[in-house]
Amino acid sequence: MKVVIVGGVAGGMSTATRLRRRDESAQIVVLERGEHVSFANCGLPYYVGGVIEERQALLLQTPQSLAARFRIDVRTRHEVVDIDRENRTVRVRDLSTGTESLENYDSLILSPGASPFVPDFPGAEQALRLRDIADVDRMTAAVAGHPRTALVMGAGFIGVEMAENLVERGIKVTLVEMADQVLAPLDPEMAVLVHHRLTERGVDVHLGSRVTAFSDGMATLSSGQDVPADLLVAAIGVRAESGLAVRAGLEVNERGGIVVDDRQRTSDPHIYAVGDAAQKRDFVDGGAAMVPLAQTANRHGRLVADVITGRETHAQPVLGTAIVGVFGLQVAATGWNEKRLRAAGRRFRAIHTHPADHAGYYPGAQGMSLKLLVDPETDAILGAQGVGAAGVDKRIDVIATAMRGQIAASELADLELAYAPQFGSAKDPVNMLGFVADNLASGMTEAVQWHELDAMVAAGAHVLDVRTPGEYAAGAIPGAVLIPVDELRDRLDEVPEGDLIVHCAVGLRGHIAVQILGRHGRAVRHLDGGYRTWRAGQDALSVRVAHR
Amino acid sequence: MKVVIVGGVAGGMSTATRLRRRDESAQIVVLERGEHVSFANCGLPYYVGGVIEERQALLLQTPQSLAARFRIDVRTRHEVVDIDRENRTVRVRDLSTGTESLENYDSLILSPGASPFVPDFPGAEQALRLRDIADVDRMTAAVAGHPRTALVMGAGFIGVEMAENLVERGIKVTLVEMADQVLAPLDPEMAVLVHHRLTERGVDVHLGSRVTAFSDGMATLSSGQDVPADLLVAAIGVRAESGLAVRAGLEVNERGGIVVDDRQRTSDPHIYAVGDAAQKRDFVDGGAAMVPLAQTANRHGRLVADVITGRETHAQPVLGTAIVGVFGLQVAATGWNEKRLRAAGRRFRAIHTHPADHAGYYPGAQGMSLKLLVDPETDAILGAQGVGAAGVDKRIDVIATAMRGQIAASELADLELAYAPQFGSAKDPVNMLGFVADNLASGMTEAVQWHELDAMVAAGAHVLDVRTPGEYAAGAIPGAVLIPVDELRDRLDEVPEGDLIVHCAVGLRGHIAVQILGRHGRAVRHLDGGYRTWRAGQDALSVRVAHR
Repeated sequence: MKVVIVGGVAGGMSTATRLRRRDESAQIVVLERGEHVSFANCGLPYYVGGVIEERQALLLQTPQSLAARFRIDVRTRHEVVDIDRENRTVRVRDLSTGTESLENYDSLILSPGASPFVPDFPGAEQALRLRDIADVDRMTAAVAGHPRTALVMGAGFIGVEMAENLVERGIKVTLVEMADQVLAPLDPEMAVLVHHRLTERGVDVHLGSRVTAFSDGMATLSSGQDVPADLLVAAIGVRAESGLAVRAGLEVNERGGIVVDDRQRTSDPHIYAVGDAAQKRDFVDGGAAMVPLAQTANRHGRLVADVITGRETHAQPVLGTAIVGVFGLQVAATGWNEKRLRAAGRRFRAIHTHPADHAGYYPGAQGMSLKLLVDPETDAILGAQGVGAAGVDKRIDVIATAMRGQIAASELADLELAYAPQFGSAKDPVNMLGFVADNLASGMTEAVQWHELDAMVAAGAHVLDVRTPGEYAAGAIPGAVLIPVDELRDRLDEVPEGDLIVHCAVGLRGHIAVQILGRHGRAVRHLDGGYRTWRAGQDALSVRVAHR
Repeated sequence: MKVVIVGGVAGGMSTATRLRRRDESAQIVVLERGEHVSFANCGLPYYVGGVIEERQALLLQTPQSLAARFRIDVRTRHEVVDIDRENRTVRVRDLSTGTESLENYDSLILSPGASPFVPDFPGAEQALRLRDIADVDRMTAAVAGHPRTALVMGAGFIGVEMAENLVERGIKVTLVEMADQVLAPLDPEMAVLVHHRLTERGVDVHLGSRVTAFSDGMATLSSGQDVPADLLVAAIGVRAESGLAVRAGLEVNERGGIVVDDRQRTSDPHIYAVGDAAQKRDFVDGGAAMVPLAQTANRHGRLVADVITGRETHAQPVLGTAIVGVFGLQVAATGWNEKRLRAAGRRFRAIHTHPADHAGYYPGAQGMSLKLLVDPETDAILGAQGVGAAGVDKRIDVIATAMRGQIAASELADLELAYAPQFGSAKDPVNMLGFVADNLASGMTEAVQWHELDAMVAAGAHVLDVRTPGEYAAGAIPGAVLIPVDELRDRLDEVPEGDLIVHCAVGLRGHIAVQILGRHGRAVRHLDGGYRTWRAGQDALSVRVAHR
């Protein structure tokens, strides 16, 4: 058996090494266009920032090490320019010599990845990207020239990582994002927490904006504003590198993703695709998805090796679980967000909480914000997001695992998570999400979202704030009536008549107040996530307006 | 409805507060023998150690705060001495005045907890325990007297926490454990990692030992050895405080646990029990279990409030997920361990790995050791253990969640966990456990455990070490033949004839070597967990022998 693999990073190399473990005699050829294989893509921004000090640390494997351990024939600077499907051969160009040759295959694995998208504007060609070692070498060379300013296009995961790492190098960073929030996988009231952290650390964030021209160290934004930028970085997003597949007549989706079945087989039964260029199946709706994540690439690479060595197996649908660090914040998400559910016209229930990463009585507890999205019909978890200094990774991993195990939102209450005061709480943040989900599912509480409040007040509802006077004085919802929860039973006659929306800071006292008022016959709803979520929502609106 | 609750800490207070949220009009009386309710049990050792500086931080609620917010009638220093089931009344003694009174109930909730066991030997009455605020006050007073030495009886979770916190106070600590290892929830080759850490930090650990006498600051051990101990601390374990239940004729199991159904109802339909004194149902075998953990107590307390307010709900079986910090190590476990599986005569497969908490190329990666126990028939996860400086809590929580979601061991390979290089690996340690489980389940590899090696070598098997000469020189299995994996294909003729057991440091290279040799027709098995697990196993045997 001869297997030719196009692309020698995550997906391709996972196929190659697993294949060797499965088949000692297979001929395995890896053709990689770039200089390096098996490098640490996800570490590139941190090498730019100097967090990873040694360039060598990025180079996990070499053609030599792969030959020694796995007898894999790795050829770097070799580009596959054509596939002859009928004769099962690929035409390969040696980029060092320019010579071309043919390579036959029994199975062909496409793992070409995705390339950073650079928009079209005068000067765009000067934009640095960050995909591979050559890119990182260019960028570190540029950083070594002590630029004073940089403009990063795109406030997605890579964009915010780049912003942070350039700030680490003492560079004044402008972050320009076309959308009206940073970090698209989050909903706006979660993303604004990251926005604040970015601006606190000196990053100049422009939303609803794009670069229209760049020259002589000056970028012009769509607003007409000129922004100094000794460096211009493109981190807008990636596009599947499916040109080779398209030329070969393989089926490709509208986003350029190579269409595969659940064994990663393309429309040609001898050709497989994995990694960022391959289409995935979405966990929530079973639809086609493009999820450019290393974990999935590796997993599917391994799977292809199993498939072509005759194993009955198939790929699992993808959640898109992802995390990014932003100036000490952990920002993570899994599944769908509210924006996407809304766009798809799906019914959902949103739950916001603001727990601490561990017991408050143990020193060093740090707050986090969590959001859970739930199917109100089935109680299934549809997605989750978290932002906080510590422990967000753990909670999102637990929720992603619960989703895979088809554990319902209310059942999060019963997860038995490891508790000691320095690691969690006896009622873990994940359990608390389950309690809230259960209260909503069982009809014990009816919730109102931060963005629904204005319309309800306009329709005559009153807002009752059950925090303390001190909390109220530090910031309150305009027009809210203050009655601290501990005084509520004695001051029921002061509660405004009519529809009521009750809140506290994060939801705990508000929930109690809702129960008290409900048992006294009042039509009362709970402001989900309390003042903290409402405040974040307002902040999200105002950063949006400010950038309009 | 009048509900009387015996015991005002985790379980009882969770019942009381949830009950109020469910029923604004219920009369709720909490009778607590001690001075305090709702205190932070799990924080007590850290207050002794000075990590938690303020005593006030331990007191989460007071009778006053609970009355104000929940209209709960909390009576501290009130002991329930008898239950008249027929008349649904309890006899209550006011410990301040000695007077007794009767309190009737519609539902009675028993949450008496468990008390630290003190063995019987001359001077045992001088042993300090650590259950409540009065205990912690006694212990901090004793520590304030600047004792030079302390002896902690019991190397369970509380015992090692006490040892650490007393060391933090500058006290020389002797830790005495009857079993032949510390931390019974772990298997010996995992526990020995903690044993080493304890001894590195100056704790004098005695296994297979107990105190037989104590007087004048000197403890005599069962070995005859005298050990100076200005303080004597009992942390041997707890016993359900089920005396009241027994006197009332309620069904109690052989370990003193109050027998309850899956709604926490005792043998009397008007009496419920929760917390450390109540029997639980085990997740793995469905049998009766005693699991004295705060999370379960809280969860079951909440559940009882739902049940007595008419909700159809039931308790989930318990995994016993637990964690403890020991001098910078995170030590966590869930489900069953190998010892217990073996004792129960259950078939199982053990998997040991030694991954890093995050990508090795990102600074600060820390190693951990994980152990997964798998049902070889069904591939179900039976339990897991972890020891390491960071990220163990996350992996055990994910595995505990997977168990609850009935995710099979091999399916851990497909969990989509959040990856960025500072938080995890593209192939997370949990995924790696899944890969190993899959390789074993699919028959790709056959594994040998560290404790099986000697017998196999005695029967003629050869050990092949595929690490580097440098690693071999730093420590190897006696008699092992060294052929580095990268040279193996060229040196096949040097591989000893007959049965082969192959290993590397942790299992990655060993697995590759097993595949190479298997494809060359050799009868070869893989030493699970590599040299690292074998070494830990030998260490576990030698600390056991040393203390015999």
